[in-house]
Amino acid sequence: MPTDHSKVLEGRDFRWPDVALRSYKAASAGHAGVTRQTLLGDGPGEDALTFVTRYFEIAPGGYSSLEHHRHPHVVVVVRGRGAVRLGERTMPVAPLDCVYVAPGTVHQFHAATDEPLGFLCVVDRVRDRPQPVTED
Amino acid sequence: MPTDHSKVLEGRDFRWPDVALRSYKAASAGHAGVTRQTLLGDGPGEDALTFVTRYFEIAPGGYSSLEHHRHPHVVVVVRGRGAVRLGERTMPVAPLDCVYVAPGTVHQFHAATDEPLGFLCVVDRVRDRPQPVTED
Repeated sequence: MPTDHSKVLEGRDFRWPDVALRSYKAASAGHAGVTRQTLLGDGPGEDALTFVTRYFEIAPGGYSSLEHHRHPHVVVVVRGRGAVRLGERTMPVAPLDCVYVAPGTVHQFHAATDEPLGFLCVVDRVRDRPQPVTED
Repeated sequence: MPTDHSKVLEGRDFRWPDVALRSYKAASAGHAGVTRQTLLGDGPGEDALTFVTRYFEIAPGGYSSLEHHRHPHVVVVVRGRGAVRLGERTMPVAPLDCVYVAPGTVHQFHAATDEPLGFLCVVDRVRDRPQPVTED
C-alpha cells in the first residue's frame, strides 16, 4: 500500500508551527509589513495538488506590492480589516470576504491602520511572475 | 479594454449572500446536516480559475459522506470544532487547521456534538466523482 500523505496541519493564532514564516519579497519591492506562510501545495507528498494555498499577513498600516500577472488569485480574508485595490476600484475587506483577482488586474492589499489583515490566497502551482506597477 | 471580472464577494456570519446555499448531496448518501456554498471558480468570468473554492458547514452532530476519490482536497477550518477521518486515523480539527486529503484516502468530516464545523475546501475544477465507502 502506498504511503498516505494526508495530514492535518495545525493552525494556532494565525500561525502554522509546522511551516516556515517567510518574508514576502525583497524589501525594496514597494510593500511593507507582509509575511507569508505556504500551507499546502509545495510540501513533500503534495505533488497531486495543482494549486498552492498560502497565508499572508499584513501588519497594521502595511500593504502588498501593487502588481499584476496573468494567473488569477483567490483570496479569503480570515483576520482583521483592510482594503483591496482592484484596477481603479478600492473596496473594504473583512473576515470571510472573498476576493477574485482576474488575470491582468492590477491589485494591492492594504491593512487597516489599527489592525492586521490576514488572508488565505490560492494560486496555480505553475504561474507567471508578478509584474510590479509604478504609480505615475 | 476587456471586462475586469475581479470582485469582492462579501461574507457575513459564515454565509455569502451572493451565492446559493445548497444541500450537499442526495439525502440518502450517508451524511447529515451538511450545506455547501460555491464561493469562487464556477461563476461567470471565473473561467481562468482551474480550482473551485467551496464552503461546507456541518451542523452539530452531523457528518459528511465517507468517501474517496483521486482528486486531492485542501481544507481550511474556519468555524467550530470537529474531527476528520483520514484512512484509519481520526484527528480533531479547529479553526485554522488545514487538512490535506491525498488522492485515494478515505475521509469523512464530523462536527462536534455542540458546535457546527465550517471549512473552506479547494478542489480542481475538473475532477473525478467521489466513491462512497460502506463500513463493514
